Amino acid sequence: MRFSLVLTAMVTVSRSAEALYPINELAVTPAMGWNNWNAFGCSVNEDLLLSTAEKVAAFGLRDVGYQYIVLDDCWSAGRDKDGNLLHDSEKFPHGMKYVADRLHSLGFRFGMYSDAGSSTCGQYVGSLGYEKQDAKTFASWDVDYLKYDNCFNEGLSGTAKITSERYRTMGHALNATGRQILYSMCNWGEDYPWKWAQTVANSWRMSGDIYDSFDRPDPRCPCTGDEGYDCSFPGFHCSAMNILNKAAAFVHTSTPGAWNDLDMLEVGNGGMDDEEYKTHFSMWAAVKSPLLMGNDIAALDTKTLSILTNPAVLAVSQDPVGSPAIRRWRYYVNDTDAYGQGEIQMWSGPLFGGDQLVALLNAGNSTRTMNASLADIFYDYGPEGTAPEVNESWDIHDLWANRMDDATAQNVIDDTATNLTAFYYNATETSYKDGLAANNTLLLGKLTGTVAAGGAIETVLPRHGIALLRLRKR
Amino acid sequence: MRFSLVLTAMVTVSRSAEALYPINELAVTPAMGWNNWNAFGCSVNEDLLLSTAEKVAAFGLRDVGYQYIVLDDCWSAGRDKDGNLLHDSEKFPHGMKYVADRLHSLGFRFGMYSDAGSSTCGQYVGSLGYEKQDAKTFASWDVDYLKYDNCFNEGLSGTAKITSERYRTMGHALNATGRQILYSMCNWGEDYPWKWAQTVANSWRMSGDIYDSFDRPDPRCPCTGDEGYDCSFPGFHCSAMNILNKAAAFVHTSTPGAWNDLDMLEVGNGGMDDEEYKTHFSMWAAVKSPLLMGNDIAALDTKTLSILTNPAVLAVSQDPVGSPAIRRWRYYVNDTDAYGQGEIQMWSGPLFGGDQLVALLNAGNSTRTMNASLADIFYDYGPEGTAPEVNESWDIHDLWANRMDDATAQNVIDDTATNLTAFYYNATETSYKDGLAANNTLLLGKLTGTVAAGGAIETVLPRHGIALLRLRKR
Amino acid sequence: MRFSLVLTAMVTVSRSAEALYPINELAVTPAMGWNNWNAFGCSVNEDLLLSTAEKVAAFGLRDVGYQYIVLDDCWSAGRDKDGNLLHDSEKFPHGMKYVADRLHSLGFRFGMYSDAGSSTCGQYVGSLGYEKQDAKTFASWDVDYLKYDNCFNEGLSGTAKITSERYRTMGHALNATGRQILYSMCNWGEDYPWKWAQTVANSWRMSGDIYDSFDRPDPRCPCTGDEGYDCSFPGFHCSAMNILNKAAAFVHTSTPGAWNDLDMLEVGNGGMDDEEYKTHFSMWAAVKSPLLMGNDIAALDTKTLSILTNPAVLAVSQDPVGSPAIRRWRYYVNDTDAYGQGEIQMWSGPLFGGDQLVALLNAGNSTRTMNASLADIFYDYGPEGTAPEVNESWDIHDLWANRMDDATAQNVIDDTATNLTAFYYNATETSYKDGLAANNTLLLGKLTGTVAAGGAIETVLPRHGIALLRLRKR
Amino acid sequence: MRFSLVLTAMVTVSRSAEALYPINELAVTPAMGWNNWNAFGCSVNEDLLLSTAEKVAAFGLRDVGYQYIVLDDCWSAGRDKDGNLLHDSEKFPHGMKYVADRLHSLGFRFGMYSDAGSSTCGQYVGSLGYEKQDAKTFASWDVDYLKYDNCFNEGLSGTAKITSERYRTMGHALNATGRQILYSMCNWGEDYPWKWAQTVANSWRMSGDIYDSFDRPDPRCPCTGDEGYDCSFPGFHCSAMNILNKAAAFVHTSTPGAWNDLDMLEVGNGGMDDEEYKTHFSMWAAVKSPLLMGNDIAALDTKTLSILTNPAVLAVSQDPVGSPAIRRWRYYVNDTDAYGQGEIQMWSGPLFGGDQLVALLNAGNSTRTMNASLADIFYDYGPEGTAPEVNESWDIHDLWANRMDDATAQNVIDDTATNLTAFYYNATETSYKDGLAANNTLLLGKLTGTVAAGGAIETVLPRHGIALLRLRKR
Repeated sequence: MRFSLVLTAMVTVSRSAEALYPINELAVTPAMGWNNWNAFGCSVNEDLLLSTAEKVAAFGLRDVGYQYIVLDDCWSAGRDKDGNLLHDSEKFPHGMKYVADRLHSLGFRFGMYSDAGSSTCGQYVGSLGYEKQDAKTFASWDVDYLKYDNCFNEGLSGTAKITSERYRTMGHALNATGRQILYSMCNWGEDYPWKWAQTVANSWRMSGDIYDSFDRPDPRCPCTGDEGYDCSFPGFHCSAMNILNKAAAFVHTSTPGAWNDLDMLEVGNGGMDDEEYKTHFSMWAAVKSPLLMGNDIAALDTKTLSILTNPAVLAVSQDPVGSPAIRRWRYYVNDTDAYGQGEIQMWSGPLFGGDQLVALLNAGNSTRTMNASLADIFYDYGPEGTAPEVNESWDIHDLWANRMDDATAQNVIDDTATNLTAFYYNATETSYKDGLAANNTLLLGKLTGTVAAGGAIETVLPRHGIALLRLRKR
Repeated sequence: MRFSLVLTAMVTVSRSAEALYPINELAVTPAMGWNNWNAFGCSVNEDLLLSTAEKVAAFGLRDVGYQYIVLDDCWSAGRDKDGNLLHDSEKFPHGMKYVADRLHSLGFRFGMYSDAGSSTCGQYVGSLGYEKQDAKTFASWDVDYLKYDNCFNEGLSGTAKITSERYRTMGHALNATGRQILYSMCNWGEDYPWKWAQTVANSWRMSGDIYDSFDRPDPRCPCTGDEGYDCSFPGFHCSAMNILNKAAAFVHTSTPGAWNDLDMLEVGNGGMDDEEYKTHFSMWAAVKSPLLMGNDIAALDTKTLSILTNPAVLAVSQDPVGSPAIRRWRYYVNDTDAYGQGEIQMWSGPLFGGDQLVALLNAGNSTRTMNASLADIFYDYGPEGTAPEVNESWDIHDLWANRMDDATAQNVIDDTATNLTAFYYNATETSYKDGLAANNTLLLGKLTGTVAAGGAIETVLPRHGIALLRLRKR
Repeated sequence: MRFSLVLTAMVTVSRSAEALYPINELAVTPAMGWNNWNAFGCSVNEDLLLSTAEKVAAFGLRDVGYQYIVLDDCWSAGRDKDGNLLHDSEKFPHGMKYVADRLHSLGFRFGMYSDAGSSTCGQYVGSLGYEKQDAKTFASWDVDYLKYDNCFNEGLSGTAKITSERYRTMGHALNATGRQILYSMCNWGEDYPWKWAQTVANSWRMSGDIYDSFDRPDPRCPCTGDEGYDCSFPGFHCSAMNILNKAAAFVHTSTPGAWNDLDMLEVGNGGMDDEEYKTHFSMWAAVKSPLLMGNDIAALDTKTLSILTNPAVLAVSQDPVGSPAIRRWRYYVNDTDAYGQGEIQMWSGPLFGGDQLVALLNAGNSTRTMNASLADIFYDYGPEGTAPEVNESWDIHDLWANRMDDATAQNVIDDTATNLTAFYYNATETSYKDGLAANNTLLLGKLTGTVAAGGAIETVLPRHGIALLRLRKR
Repeated sequence: MRFSLVLTAMVTVSRSAEALYPINELAVTPAMGWNNWNAFGCSVNEDLLLSTAEKVAAFGLRDVGYQYIVLDDCWSAGRDKDGNLLHDSEKFPHGMKYVADRLHSLGFRFGMYSDAGSSTCGQYVGSLGYEKQDAKTFASWDVDYLKYDNCFNEGLSGTAKITSERYRTMGHALNATGRQILYSMCNWGEDYPWKWAQTVANSWRMSGDIYDSFDRPDPRCPCTGDEGYDCSFPGFHCSAMNILNKAAAFVHTSTPGAWNDLDMLEVGNGGMDDEEYKTHFSMWAAVKSPLLMGNDIAALDTKTLSILTNPAVLAVSQDPVGSPAIRRWRYYVNDTDAYGQGEIQMWSGPLFGGDQLVALLNAGNSTRTMNASLADIFYDYGPEGTAPEVNESWDIHDLWANRMDDATAQNVIDDTATNLTAFYYNATETSYKDGLAANNTLLLGKLTGTVAAGGAIETVLPRHGIALLRLRKR
């Protein structure tokens, strides 16, 4: 299994000029947007979507890249006599096309939800057996994105063949509409989609649903331990660390146009502290998960805003190389937290322009000094310190050092901000790719040090905290 | 995987008005009744069923809700020349329709048994390939319930698709008769029915057969440990704790009309002590398993009667919200029993009217003080103490405190009881839902204390004992 | 999963009068015989079979029940132009029908071998796709038994459905010949035949091939530990203890006419000491595995003869109740052997006439005193000491105490024996069932003590040794 | 599961004269050659192949047996309008037939690459659905070998049946061309090819891709531990020890014409030290993996040359018996390395002429004395020291003792060597089989000692080092 972006010593590997598997031209970088589920669940309506979209725009979140406004479950009212999906006219008095139009006029793209089963998780009508008809309906509503869930799938699972056929049917139906619709597959990792979904969808969930907890075990999210990725029942209420550790085995199977989805963000929902949210957000960016905000935007606080808008971290997520960071090592530690969890990790991976991302993650329960050697950081370029990169010296850019301060964030929230150019990168104007090519300093964090050839990075990390660093050749 | 009754912070989730998956209108709450297997196995006949039914009625068990009298395996004598099922005319001299009529006239519903294989577990004829014909036969006998077993299934298993198709065939056949027949699927959890059986049956067994033991390991019931739910061979002779721990991973997939079945009760069969039976019964109620009595009703003793009739616990089982309690934590403890088992757990979940169920389970080998914080109890309403409910204060109702005393129970057994209104709730007259709505005190246990905002409940628990508590907002 | 012979408290369960699943009327008790593979592998020919058969008869082994002489792999020379199987005319100059005739005239039944694949394990032609034709050929040769292997099965495995269909094809073909041919399925336990093979074959292998070792681990026989039964690669070179421990999970799925096969005996092949062979033989008898001798009969020594002929142990194997002993407990011990193995176990199960089998197994590395309580011995009749049998007192019959002495055995081997009635039971004359019914003392071992109501058996056991006891109600 | 080359006591087992499963007459011994992937990845072109081939010949590697020059992924430019595969005309300006002709004229065979999916791992066109057409194309290009990968397989996996059908399609297509094309299946061990691929291909990969590391864990290569062979996600970046330990369970399923493939060699790529490369190379030879050099031949150093050409080790790989060495024991040791790994192992197996191979492997972190008893070495010929071979005395030939010295190797590299007959075996002139039959001393290593009947071999081994010994009966 050698995916195209694997870099080995002395080798430059690039995708085939006529790269075949992405099913469309979307999601060249991981999707960014907002989805109502984590904060609002089934309580959806037109006003929630549109007022949230307005706030996303107002707080500058749209322009940093959060383009998709995604409506999750509970929007429908069944089918008409011809089998066409009906919207709930109480929740959506003007219909879905109206929502799409409004979102488009606000500069957003519109995401809808359905389910590859007889009914959705919320027990609304599902699309199984109606794929072509429903895809046409979504296209007629000018939908730009479909999240496609897995509840009540009539037992159509158990092998990759059975599951992939069920999901491929909708993918083909979406493409057949002629409209470019990002296809976000949500089968919770059943039957190993990281093996086969690259030719089926733009992204695929790889675990049970996230819950707003850093590392709390929950019996409904089984499959912990080192082989946790191999899970016969994905469940839900999975902590951020649980999902991250499952993903470590196969996150490299992502590639532009086809991404492992670690589920929507919990940043700002209150179940983690600021360090934990920074870690959660950083790692989702590092491994190129889609970044769907999952908080109540109307209740946004300063810390949440300054996480979600951090241009240097978003530039990692949206890096044109599209190569997920890889976990280089993981050690269990003794200072465990109230849930008995404690470990430290180091991840790294290539970034645009020959830069290298490094993430040092302290999931121990107390402050600790951690370090990462160039030999480990560049392991994929050559084992045991043989990579030429190990013999270079590197500047270290701390991607959190220039985080927006609380006063500024409060001004943004209060709509009293004046000059935000020190904190916001307008990706709508200039893509992250172009910004990186132009060495836009917003995207590079803060130069905080240097690591000499053959050396190591050392940093002090708080409990449950992260150092997210960009190494740039001197 | 987000089932409709999941409650998240600030969210009220309710089922779609046109909720789709239950296959009929039955089992809105978990089925209650009696099945002969655990106590009598294959030794069945008309007299056993009818005399038991009379006693169930006489002891007031019918009126508290045990409505189904279920005949298990070993009743048939093959098929006639047209392939119609024949009853064993020695065991059932008047035929099965007669049994149904008699049970109906006694106010019961009649449950029958067959098998999704070439023969039943007792090697009587099975229904595989005869689903339509047999469903019609059952309907012609006025059957109200079908337990459908999994022996000798001709190897039709191995993926959810293969297994679900086999079971769906009978479900469709039952519905096609036009008679409302509760469909109780008994495939021992093979191929993960909790993932797909909600659209197939009203309940599904999720493990190997229960045995009358609290926690004894048995090689015939493999799959112990934290990932025990993922079991390629369900086996039998599973202890109550073994089954409960397997169920913890997926019990949330139950919903009104479609329930995880932890197997029939062993209460009163002699293999556990009174504390253990209370725990077994409480947890089966808490997680919304069907409650099928499995003891010899003719030999009922006082302790068994006072467990099976406890209105406050039955109100948990039959709660209209229909939301299974969830295990919040589990710790192994050092004071293990003769079988090397020892652990403590806390479960909680929503009840009607905004109440919350709490179960503290001491499966350690000695008396211990246990406690549960509001933060843990209300975890699903908001992580890490963020749930608004944590900042409320709550009355604590002990659901076992008003248990019927032995003298009264002996009077019931001796048919010398006079006024039982302090102990019996007549659910035939007034549903548990209506009783709860009317704040019927029988259903609320005994107010034993209060827990302040941000506080914790503390209680002393005997070996293998349980505290089953209803929290009500002050 | 409740098989018909499960006995629960107060219940007598018997098979349906028209019991359905055995595919024929054979193997009412586990098959007994000799197979050349373990000692001779591919080196087969007419003389080996016939001369061995003569010795089996001469040493009295035929009359104690070893009726089947089974030719294993490597006998064929491909197919003729019409696709008919050809015997190797060098190895079998008179053809297979001649072998059958000779064996029949010697009082034996003739077993053949083929493979449910494109070729046999030894790379001779397989029967996949030729089932009907080959079954007819075997019937035309007057074959009485078919061992049907699993090599080179063209990938037709992975679910119970795929595998069972492949094996059922041959079973149907054998039955269609009109000849009663015992069908011995040898798919090494792949896809869990203990779940479904009762309607497919008379017996099914449940593990990788045995090797002549008591407990040595071998990487080619993976799947050790408590969940070892769930094995994706059965392999081979499995020790006796490895196989026994795998079988513990499902040995109860055997029933008259359909048996779990723990593979052929290694008794007498030299890799175990006498205690170990006694243990191996005792446990194969206790769990009702077929008993196929696997040694070189021409080189039989005295110890081997006295094991293989022990009437009291054979009466356990051939007990008419046909109920496999069940492992009641297993503990790991510290005195491990050179392979790091050490454990003790107790097994028990019902025998004819209300007797109970008890096996105490010391797989520790030194002599130890072991005991077994009546409560544990009769656990299936009632948990936690509630079985009525616990309150009875029992005579203890040691089934090895009357083992044939070496001098007598040497006389048998030298053909100088005179009166052997103290050691040989002639099952050809009188079945074990009739002998047990007549209380033939040969079948009962030696009365060595008594256990009082509520008591326990205590015995001293050598390293890797066994106590095999028959309890009889006083 | 008894494969034909299993040797048991007193038994000589040989393949059926008309052995059925190899799909062609190739790979009677494991393939030897060079593949560009490990060193060059996607950076392929005509010049790389041809200039490498010239060096392979010049350094004497062709004549010692490395006959196949295999082009891996990234050579194509899609399909023409008729669906025919097109070569990339920039990389291969003269087309592929030209490459084949040139390689043939240099005395090599030409290997190509495709994928049993919609696209290759590098996202070039795959052959799924084009098997017949592509096989014809390859034949028309005079291709002698096809490596057939598993990326983007459209979910066609999950059972042996699904996967084997996909791969069998290409095997049949290759055979249908009439050209003898070695079929090298590369599905990374998914769905257990060692169970079924003997009738599908000449070799099959059994794990995720190798990385140039002795024993470093990597999350992308999960499935470590004793049951690691049973892997639902093979991944990549697997260390040499990881792959070897997975293979231990099933390496015996190889047989002439059908081999387990442990992936291409990393010898000479820089990630291991000399002892580690010797171990890696020795074990790949011992277990009869194909030996595809994976290094940059143009940058060959002396140590690499003297490993790759060692005639005594190559004679093990190419031994006519074709029986993989078996791991006899494995123990974890305390002196673990920086990655926490530490273990020791002993492997042995039969060689031509009654010789026996012994490999003592010290994967501990320091020098240690190890020993191996004849009883263990000859375990498969009889358990517990019963093998007749244990009672023989044996000469010990050290297969690394006569390794080419650095000065000589440097002369080869510099093309200044004169007489190399002491180091090179010309297998092109005389096969290893004939050389062994003639007792060519180059193939026998150096006689370094003797082991007496019932004795043991003792040797001192460096960290991560190996002793590879040939025992010959005195």
